[in-house]
Amino acid sequence: MEFVTGQKKKNTVEIADILREGMHGNAVKLRGAVHTVRDMRGFSFLVLRNYGGLVQCVADGDSGGAVVLAVRSMKEGTAVEASGVVRAESRAPNGFELHLTGVDILSEPEGDAPLPLPIAKRKLNASLETKLSLRPLSLRNLRERAVFKLQEGIVRGFRDFLFSEHFTEVRTPKIVAGNAEGGANVFQLEYFRKRAFLAQSPQFYKQTLVGVYDRVFEVGPVLCAEKHNTARHLNEYTGLDLEMGYIDSFTEIMETETAMLSYTIGLLFKEYARELAILGIELPSAGKIPSVRFDEAKRLAAEKYSRRIRDPYDLEPEEEALIGRYFKEEYGSDFVFVTHYPSRKRPFYAMDDPADEKFTLSFDLLFRGMEITTGGQRIHDYGMLKNKMKERGMEPDDFAGYLMIFQYGMPPHGGLGIGLERLTMQLLGEGNVRETAMFPRDVNRLTP
Amino acid sequence: MEFVTGQKKKNTVEIADILREGMHGNAVKLRGAVHTVRDMRGFSFLVLRNYGGLVQCVADGDSGGAVVLAVRSMKEGTAVEASGVVRAESRAPNGFELHLTGVDILSEPEGDAPLPLPIAKRKLNASLETKLSLRPLSLRNLRERAVFKLQEGIVRGFRDFLFSEHFTEVRTPKIVAGNAEGGANVFQLEYFRKRAFLAQSPQFYKQTLVGVYDRVFEVGPVLCAEKHNTARHLNEYTGLDLEMGYIDSFTEIMETETAMLSYTIGLLFKEYARELAILGIELPSAGKIPSVRFDEAKRLAAEKYSRRIRDPYDLEPEEEALIGRYFKEEYGSDFVFVTHYPSRKRPFYAMDDPADEKFTLSFDLLFRGMEITTGGQRIHDYGMLKNKMKERGMEPDDFAGYLMIFQYGMPPHGGLGIGLERLTMQLLGEGNVRETAMFPRDVNRLTP
Repeated sequence: MEFVTGQKKKNTVEIADILREGMHGNAVKLRGAVHTVRDMRGFSFLVLRNYGGLVQCVADGDSGGAVVLAVRSMKEGTAVEASGVVRAESRAPNGFELHLTGVDILSEPEGDAPLPLPIAKRKLNASLETKLSLRPLSLRNLRERAVFKLQEGIVRGFRDFLFSEHFTEVRTPKIVAGNAEGGANVFQLEYFRKRAFLAQSPQFYKQTLVGVYDRVFEVGPVLCAEKHNTARHLNEYTGLDLEMGYIDSFTEIMETETAMLSYTIGLLFKEYARELAILGIELPSAGKIPSVRFDEAKRLAAEKYSRRIRDPYDLEPEEEALIGRYFKEEYGSDFVFVTHYPSRKRPFYAMDDPADEKFTLSFDLLFRGMEITTGGQRIHDYGMLKNKMKERGMEPDDFAGYLMIFQYGMPPHGGLGIGLERLTMQLLGEGNVRETAMFPRDVNRLTP
Repeated sequence: MEFVTGQKKKNTVEIADILREGMHGNAVKLRGAVHTVRDMRGFSFLVLRNYGGLVQCVADGDSGGAVVLAVRSMKEGTAVEASGVVRAESRAPNGFELHLTGVDILSEPEGDAPLPLPIAKRKLNASLETKLSLRPLSLRNLRERAVFKLQEGIVRGFRDFLFSEHFTEVRTPKIVAGNAEGGANVFQLEYFRKRAFLAQSPQFYKQTLVGVYDRVFEVGPVLCAEKHNTARHLNEYTGLDLEMGYIDSFTEIMETETAMLSYTIGLLFKEYARELAILGIELPSAGKIPSVRFDEAKRLAAEKYSRRIRDPYDLEPEEEALIGRYFKEEYGSDFVFVTHYPSRKRPFYAMDDPADEKFTLSFDLLFRGMEITTGGQRIHDYGMLKNKMKERGMEPDDFAGYLMIFQYGMPPHGGLGIGLERLTMQLLGEGNVRETAMFPRDVNRLTP
């Protein structure tokens, strides 16, 4: 009988090992894919790429003729194990190179067709369309892959901060019987001879789970049949959702988001420095975010930029951009909370402001002029919620499972949802949210 | 202008604060939902429930008549803020009680209908059907909610361990154009006049991302139109998926899983002690997991338990149970790796064993006699993969986006998928996987 007893020590090293332990003069083995090969006079550079970055390897006369020959004929994308001696070299990536003594091929690409994209270039000079169609390859580019590594960091920040604030992580169904937000933007499917929908929001479930764990969050796919094919919409995106009970005011939700953003920015600064450098990103500050009422925000932007207010009940994207600009210019802030959205523009479960029921105790967070979060306090009173549904022509009996939680008691609560790809887009200053969606889904795009 | 500057200190305390700081004799405020009210001779117990557990509050003559009256008339599920003085009481939950000086109602349930389930009981004596139909309420039961809190811990263990092993976390699309695993068990939907499917596995994407980040993992929904309505199948479950490149052998994947399980068990032991106690769980050991070939496992179980082998190429659930029993009895292990599954039972991308191509370099992990993981090495050679597809009557052109990654080079790699709800089910010794799915989806169940 054999037994598996955990991981064995590998005889290969990682870039981080070399950087940490300073293995100069040591003979090591290291694995990676061929990034580039450059023949120089009397020697060759073999640059390997792995998750840790790039490693420059040098094959020269001392490496032996077989190694030199092997390196010269190597194709980009070949997976190899390089053996060599570490030596300091300030011009090489990470400040060291490997003087090759051997190189073993682990796996080779097919044929001799050149790569359809110059992956090894610093920046892919390709159209968005081309990059997306070739996403499995374009992601291998250092800049492209840094985008989604950074996105990992944003999710980690969200999660780690909320864990520290005693939130419980939940996972809610993506195939559902009803339609949480109302509206027609929902995908339908046949589910064993019943009609089902894809979840456009975890709203009802996260409220339900506030009744269980007081504070919950979810990171999961949001599926939305929105037909608008704009630079800021996706039909599948990642929702960062939270919902918290026992709040005193909807301001508490904004305070939680502010603290979460500050924590996340700190995490990116500490642990994603390499990606920030590759992408040339300057992180914003979220320590102090201005908060302005919806109507006031509209007025300020209209006055300063001489723009007529067309619809007093809605914010157009152009208005969002101007409000963002206003608060950048006047207060130096990349973020601004816009509060008290009109009731008619919010879903039925939004809590109206008792001081003026035309408005809600809700907010959006704009980041560099674009909405990245929608949140607010929810109605927790059964009777009030049922009335609101009837006012909107909804049938309470269709929502029996949801209404049940209010019938048997729910604390005052509220929450928010953040679109991960949009947040990333704004952080990177990209003009199209598809740049920051790994495998974007839109009206025309279902592959790869 | 107002500014939001992060979280304000609340004037309420948490159970953990009291346990940590020993606030005996201190006047505090604490929030929670009414769990039970019991009128005693001359005083009343008000037990509150929040995410941290239960808090016993006592209202007596010293609390004032208004408080006593308020407590007596309180309904289960009312959200309150209790004010009182902490005092040690060994018979109370957590060893303290709150001697009430005030109680404010934050929110009340509707009407006077009794709860349809006795939430405050230690264990809900209700059928699975009833519990599921009333899931929004049944989850409020301490035992029920502990199940999913523990599940949170399993996911944390998986993730934290893999982060420490330089895996990158990814999120892959759930609406896809093709069908990764083959077979008919896939949900279809109309996607802007095209036919689309729900992702039954992140297989192709996680392999693609090995070409980018070397090692990746995903925690996400898996949607599977399996028509079998058994105690171990769900139509939506949470997949814990990983995929790793530059492996020397498929054994490395089992080693990684073993180390991950040990880490996770340690995390549950340290940070989920309360849930383990509520659920009465003894954690298994995963430090040393026996590994046995498929054919050998079948033979051992057949011999010891005098069971005829009906199909030499498949493991029936009863056989899995016997193999689990064998390794528990003979080696004291709750886990067993079964390796080298027959090629004909594995997907086209499974790597055949060069020593005998009827079998694959693959494995399942059985936990207490049930499969919780399927994994193995994948084919990384473009030509080999294309041939395998043709042998199986598949059309390579239908998989162009997937084949692209092999054409331009992929390292040797492999991975695994774990069913979270099944793992939880086996850990808890439950007989039905619906017990460990928060909002299960099956052939008949689409709500709540």
